[in-house]
Amino acid sequence: MRLSRLFTPRTVASAHCDLPCGVYDPAQARIEAESIKAICEKYQASDDPEFRTRSLIIKEQRAELVKHHLWVLWTDYFKAPHFEAYPHLHRLFNEATKLAGTGGAKGSADPAVADQLLARIEEISTIFWETKKQ
Amino acid sequence: MRLSRLFTPRTVASAHCDLPCGVYDPAQARIEAESIKAICEKYQASDDPEFRTRSLIIKEQRAELVKHHLWVLWTDYFKAPHFEAYPHLHRLFNEATKLAGTGGAKGSADPAVADQLLARIEEISTIFWETKKQ
Amino acid sequence: MRLSRLFTPRTVASAHCDLPCGVYDPAQARIEAESIKAICEKYQASDDPEFRTRSLIIKEQRAELVKHHLWVLWTDYFKAPHFEAYPHLHRLFNEATKLAGTGGAKGSADPAVADQLLARIEEISTIFWETKKQ
Amino acid sequence: MRLSRLFTPRTVASAHCDLPCGVYDPAQARIEAESIKAICEKYQASDDPEFRTRSLIIKEQRAELVKHHLWVLWTDYFKAPHFEAYPHLHRLFNEATKLAGTGGAKGSADPAVADQLLARIEEISTIFWETKKQ
Amino acid sequence: MRLSRLFTPRTVASAHCDLPCGVYDPAQARIEAESIKAICEKYQASDDPEFRTRSLIIKEQRAELVKHHLWVLWTDYFKAPHFEAYPHLHRLFNEATKLAGTGGAKGSADPAVADQLLARIEEISTIFWETKKQ
Amino acid sequence: MRLSRLFTPRTVASAHCDLPCGVYDPAQARIEAESIKAICEKYQASDDPEFRTRSLIIKEQRAELVKHHLWVLWTDYFKAPHFEAYPHLHRLFNEATKLAGTGGAKGSADPAVADQLLARIEEISTIFWETKKQ
Repeated sequence: MRLSRLFTPRTVASAHCDLPCGVYDPAQARIEAESIKAICEKYQASDDPEFRTRSLIIKEQRAELVKHHLWVLWTDYFKAPHFEAYPHLHRLFNEATKLAGTGGAKGSADPAVADQLLARIEEISTIFWETKKQ
Repeated sequence: MRLSRLFTPRTVASAHCDLPCGVYDPAQARIEAESIKAICEKYQASDDPEFRTRSLIIKEQRAELVKHHLWVLWTDYFKAPHFEAYPHLHRLFNEATKLAGTGGAKGSADPAVADQLLARIEEISTIFWETKKQ
Repeated sequence: MRLSRLFTPRTVASAHCDLPCGVYDPAQARIEAESIKAICEKYQASDDPEFRTRSLIIKEQRAELVKHHLWVLWTDYFKAPHFEAYPHLHRLFNEATKLAGTGGAKGSADPAVADQLLARIEEISTIFWETKKQ
Repeated sequence: MRLSRLFTPRTVASAHCDLPCGVYDPAQARIEAESIKAICEKYQASDDPEFRTRSLIIKEQRAELVKHHLWVLWTDYFKAPHFEAYPHLHRLFNEATKLAGTGGAKGSADPAVADQLLARIEEISTIFWETKKQ
Repeated sequence: MRLSRLFTPRTVASAHCDLPCGVYDPAQARIEAESIKAICEKYQASDDPEFRTRSLIIKEQRAELVKHHLWVLWTDYFKAPHFEAYPHLHRLFNEATKLAGTGGAKGSADPAVADQLLARIEEISTIFWETKKQ
Repeated sequence: MRLSRLFTPRTVASAHCDLPCGVYDPAQARIEAESIKAICEKYQASDDPEFRTRSLIIKEQRAELVKHHLWVLWTDYFKAPHFEAYPHLHRLFNEATKLAGTGGAKGSADPAVADQLLARIEEISTIFWETKKQ
């Protein structure tokens, strides 16, 4: 077992199903976005047309997953009091999901765009964990 | 060709893919919500346990589709100027998708809940068509 | 609310789930086919290889949805008496779904092919609405 | 039954994707239908409510797969000359897919209904292999 | 940035897509398994038949996701040298995925079964992070 | 029972759902792998960029299905006694699924790679049928 695990509050909580199970975690969106960034980097470093086509196919799927995981958080985890406490939260989610779509990670293979998406997910994650502490 | 078609502006426009193709239509969400309402009515009218279980299985899928179609409109069709012109639009979408989830059409088999969902989709649809005319 | 809505019988009814909920609507296939046409037009107008690859990825998905929606109408909505009243209905559906597949919208990025598909869906839609009036 | 089956180890070709790859095999639909029959038998033999609910969930999925595999054969494999040579082929497929739906394997947990579905798939399979020999 | 983040090793990046992007994380399987445990607890605490049916529907989906995430780690992340260094790794994955299936989390609504699954995922996670340090 | 069944090595039986229905068949993986081989051959014979892109899109999907069908056999069909009787079975499945992934059929459009995948599936199939006879 990694030593760190003994001393850190497990960043466990996580989440998503619409029973609801009550388990939510922005890590789900972040993991997919990190995947997108890695894909973009490999895409830029390659000149193999087959590899590049496969990159675009897979990036499209990963970006759709980012959108889905963010939508779930926005609709299923965050409640009215959260939106009052964080008035820009609607806009933040709207922009983050747009950044995962055609105007961002789907439409671009630039790692810098993936970084912008990751930054937005980090902002959401920060708010998420603040609300979990309350 | 049906005569009515000759006299009505085709309720055509429609939409969704994230190329983007530019085709969007709230009818996609509405059709699924109407399906949910019909399922709820049949569920309430039946006492066959197999039929009722199947109803819940299918209602869960249809409600997920409602959420998806609404999320697509919210992220992909509506842009910043729309959210300025309709300041309650974020909340309207958030409540509509919540009404398709566990606190609404997923969690309940009451046709009245499906009616509330349909009413929200109609509000969204009205705004959608107003923005298309601009 | 759009004025047209006040005067037209809502082309509402629609349909599909296999409970069955009884809600069917050829608009579902048409919307996807319109998306395909828009994709083809954007594809022809672009010389960006990334955009073109993404177009083909998404067109493939949309065409599969057209096939699915048409298959559902053919199997789940139309009954034996309909096939007697419209003896060419089997062939019409078979040709329409072929036109959404490799020999049509999947295999071609020509907007004219999407138009042929839309024309077949319109024929199906006309018959569909005639049978709803009976 | 075709004599050839007696002497050849079937490693046969089979099929489905819409490239098209040219590989088609009615075994795909049959395997799912055999699964449905086994599910129905286990369902009837059990009085555990959790098991019975799971059976209905899974049966619904398997039946959808049967429909899909049959639709693919009908649209993608069979061509106009086949429909001329086998004039009842459209109806056979329409009835088989209906038997996989709400009026058959989805709506019923009776193994006898699954047997009817299997019989139709066998009819389709016989024709399929006849056309492959030509 | 949240202060806690400064002091904890991010349980970071991780991953999965088959490009491969190189991002792998056992957290994906763990999150779904935690969801299953929460579902089981809610299931046992409820006597609402609709809620219980929904619980089984969703648990089935989450368990399938656990299997998928584990399979991806087993096939895509772990290489021959890992299997030499950890000779029981094949068996561990086989048992963990079985525990997510019919003989475990799918077939049972007992939170204790979900705990067994979580324990196996924790064992896999420990090995995973050991190999990442190498 | 059909007479033919008595005289032919059944390649028939088949299988997969996680009820479990008890129906399993390596033919499901083989059919998808044969599709991949056919796609690779058509890919190599074509210089149409649209066709080649579509080939890669579809090959990716088919390869994912191969992985899935093999994973199901490994987790759901094969039990502890099988792994004792066939000590290399874990490795065989691990290598076969790797051959369907990025290091094999996904990453390559060479028909020879598809042949290697088919050979591994054949090995698995041989063992599968031996265990069915016991």
